[in-house]
Amino acid sequence: MTFPALTDLPEWKRFVLVAQACAPREDGLDLIEAPGLTLDSSGQRHSAELLAAGEALLAARQFSTQRARLFAGEPVNTTEHRAAWHTALRALRSPEGVLSERERMDAFVRKADAERRWRHIVHIGIGGSDWGVRLAVSAFGYAGTWREVRSVANIDGHAIEGGLAGLDPRHTLVVLVSKSFTTAETLQNGARAREWLQAAGLDPAAHMVAVTAKPERARAWGIPDEQIFHLWDWVGGRFSVWSAVSLTTALSVGADVLAGLRMGAAAMDEHFLHAPLSVNAPVRMALAGVVNRSILGHGSLNIAPYDSRLANLVPYVQQLDMESLGKSVDLAGRPVGVPTGPAVWGMPGTDAQHTFFQWMHQGSDGAPVDFIVCRQADHHWPTHHRQLLANCLAQREALMRGKTLDQARAECLAEGLDAAQADALAPHRVHPGGRANHLVVLPRLSPYSLGALLALYEHRVFTQGLIWGIDPFDQWGVEYGKVLARDIVGELQGDTAQPVHDVSTRHWITELKR
Amino acid sequence: MTFPALTDLPEWKRFVLVAQACAPREDGLDLIEAPGLTLDSSGQRHSAELLAAGEALLAARQFSTQRARLFAGEPVNTTEHRAAWHTALRALRSPEGVLSERERMDAFVRKADAERRWRHIVHIGIGGSDWGVRLAVSAFGYAGTWREVRSVANIDGHAIEGGLAGLDPRHTLVVLVSKSFTTAETLQNGARAREWLQAAGLDPAAHMVAVTAKPERARAWGIPDEQIFHLWDWVGGRFSVWSAVSLTTALSVGADVLAGLRMGAAAMDEHFLHAPLSVNAPVRMALAGVVNRSILGHGSLNIAPYDSRLANLVPYVQQLDMESLGKSVDLAGRPVGVPTGPAVWGMPGTDAQHTFFQWMHQGSDGAPVDFIVCRQADHHWPTHHRQLLANCLAQREALMRGKTLDQARAECLAEGLDAAQADALAPHRVHPGGRANHLVVLPRLSPYSLGALLALYEHRVFTQGLIWGIDPFDQWGVEYGKVLARDIVGELQGDTAQPVHDVSTRHWITELKR
Repeated sequence: MTFPALTDLPEWKRFVLVAQACAPREDGLDLIEAPGLTLDSSGQRHSAELLAAGEALLAARQFSTQRARLFAGEPVNTTEHRAAWHTALRALRSPEGVLSERERMDAFVRKADAERRWRHIVHIGIGGSDWGVRLAVSAFGYAGTWREVRSVANIDGHAIEGGLAGLDPRHTLVVLVSKSFTTAETLQNGARAREWLQAAGLDPAAHMVAVTAKPERARAWGIPDEQIFHLWDWVGGRFSVWSAVSLTTALSVGADVLAGLRMGAAAMDEHFLHAPLSVNAPVRMALAGVVNRSILGHGSLNIAPYDSRLANLVPYVQQLDMESLGKSVDLAGRPVGVPTGPAVWGMPGTDAQHTFFQWMHQGSDGAPVDFIVCRQADHHWPTHHRQLLANCLAQREALMRGKTLDQARAECLAEGLDAAQADALAPHRVHPGGRANHLVVLPRLSPYSLGALLALYEHRVFTQGLIWGIDPFDQWGVEYGKVLARDIVGELQGDTAQPVHDVSTRHWITELKR
Repeated sequence: MTFPALTDLPEWKRFVLVAQACAPREDGLDLIEAPGLTLDSSGQRHSAELLAAGEALLAARQFSTQRARLFAGEPVNTTEHRAAWHTALRALRSPEGVLSERERMDAFVRKADAERRWRHIVHIGIGGSDWGVRLAVSAFGYAGTWREVRSVANIDGHAIEGGLAGLDPRHTLVVLVSKSFTTAETLQNGARAREWLQAAGLDPAAHMVAVTAKPERARAWGIPDEQIFHLWDWVGGRFSVWSAVSLTTALSVGADVLAGLRMGAAAMDEHFLHAPLSVNAPVRMALAGVVNRSILGHGSLNIAPYDSRLANLVPYVQQLDMESLGKSVDLAGRPVGVPTGPAVWGMPGTDAQHTFFQWMHQGSDGAPVDFIVCRQADHHWPTHHRQLLANCLAQREALMRGKTLDQARAECLAEGLDAAQADALAPHRVHPGGRANHLVVLPRLSPYSLGALLALYEHRVFTQGLIWGIDPFDQWGVEYGKVLARDIVGELQGDTAQPVHDVSTRHWITELKR
């Protein structure tokens, strides 16, 4: 089979033409009621013709077949000949072993709760073994939890030093998470935690658990079998939040939070599988994402959760999106020919308004924004929540509507400036407007809604990868640096520096060796 | 005086031509020893001719004169007719009032320390009244501090709820920071904190201090005069870390940290003022920034501190850079004509390696990176630090050097793939290379070095603003959303929705009002 190049597809050429001809924004309401959330796409380019062209493009990419293969656990990770079957972890009918492993984890949590054990959890993992836990713990434990969680990811020794500082080792459980159980950061930090337990006269084996797809390695490292929870080869790191990787979440905010997350994600899976494409939330977001990136040329995507509990949604989506779509070669090994995944970044609004929204409004090009907000708060101060909602709507409106030179000049005059002053200042108060955005409204920040939101992003990313014709499930680009780092570690310890390094790298190896 | 448009300047045209002709990278070593840090620009386009063209461009923008005006406290904030005299806050000879106000703050801290008062500090401020404190406290208090600091910025009520949760009001000091003392977030959160103190039977006036340029407003709000610390009109929010805004930092990690930060920044000021342009670190970074953004078209800049203590450097620089340079109109009110400030984003390496470095290596366009690393760690695990340094150098080298198709194919064969398999996989393992970067090496993370680093970024931003011909000290783009938000707050409370809103905004106002 020859995989067709995107830019050769007549359906792509038509999609580009229609998108370019589509007005920046029509004053219409474009809502999708999906499980756990409402998606408002009114702030994106849209027309019946563009949607039809998008559907034709998806058909050319065999969307229905590929989506079915994803859910059937077929090897959709083409370059690695593997499944990416994270949906199985939250499905009503999970494959052999998933339910029993979940039950093992739940039993561990029930026992710990019954014994009121583990006042402190040190969660050691990085990337996909880290962000999901940070996200759920800050979302549902934002006002503190009985068990204090410290997340340690970085190889920088200050991270593990700060992670352990002040904790009572007798009451500390260390959770080591590494799919391969070879992750340098995690094993190094785990070794440091083990020393810390030993220095307190404790048996590390009694205070450590592991989550991994390589139980034999965890066993060799010293973790007893009954404290090793299993992953499967077909769960990618950035899709592993649905697995025992979230043990720390269960210990901190409750196993029912995990159950809720899974239910919300499973409901979004059903929506993605069965909703017509015109009202299929992940599909519509993906089409908008391709238009914004590959046709309109926006290099980045801003995530703006108007909820301070969702600060960690930003790095979570950043990893999901950028590790999946940060590739420029298609399945046949050719350059894709158009720009693929954008830089994903962001910060909770209203913090973002005081940090970089100046740039969003008046910078050279701004960025498309995903606004995310909860209709109902979980606190008791309606004034706060009203201001939060108003700020979210107002920033979005300002980005869409803009402000003309005439309006800016009239404002200046109304503030008492004379004509010459108004003429001078008005250009600085113009907003071009027409900035693209999505608005995602959750009824409230329940585990169900958050689970649905995460699955929405997963399937949006899958669909964009399919259109671009890339493998969203591999990550070949992260291997090269690891190999080089191993060499340089040796050279910093005294090995002869390899002549292959550039002058600057050689200089710093010599300097830092001292 | 008519302010010349950038694209009309012959010096600009020449700079563009020379930069375009400059090879991506020569294998040379390009180091600047600046106060508190070493800047390695080997990873940027560079030639003697490009530097000369850059110097000519700066001369055309009257760089020496404008730099002198900045340091003399002249109204360099053109659109607001104000000085931006933050350098005065750290100068050996500070203007009237600065030293006495600093002494007031120091006396407050000394007294609190002597009395062992205030176990908890709730710091309430947003944007420039927030990030500097978060940065310094996490940089120097990463392993915990005697006084626990909670930072509350967002208007989301969960932020203040989480900020106050579990604290003992009797031992809590609330620090309210707002230059104007009208910031909605800060006053609303301050009011909530005041209620919380009152509910505990305490006198809020005894537990709250304010930092503001409008002491009369703080007084009217209920803060006693002796607990109000002053800012000046000529200190912009994003440059206010050098003022009493950092009171919380002094209470948490010590007033000597602030003194060190100021000394480092002052030393960088001297460097910026007096070093020849060819070895002037902020100037060289600025020229590279303009090449990357306006000539090579990179839409974003990644900040990668290889130090987990510097996680908050990312939002700090993000605000400094994007609020300053997120403008597209020059001082004469004309479009600048080239892309200005990039999106600034990032994360500490090695977290970033496991989150989005895939995209940096193999995405469509990647982004220039500022790597920042400390030669010496403040912990006792050399293996950790060696791995950290090695990862920093390795990622940088991989981004610069890249990997060819032939190399990738040879690797695949060496791993045992057959020729057909190697041909299929090799394209997925190619790294284009040639990615631009700076490497900034601090001897260690001292207050002096961090202060120098912050001033380096300040002056880099100033210089880029000067070249582009924009006002880096205003922020007109943040006003519009505030006005709209005030209207929408009223409408959510029952006012008639203004017909000016788009259909979607009207829909959500109606929906969320319920």
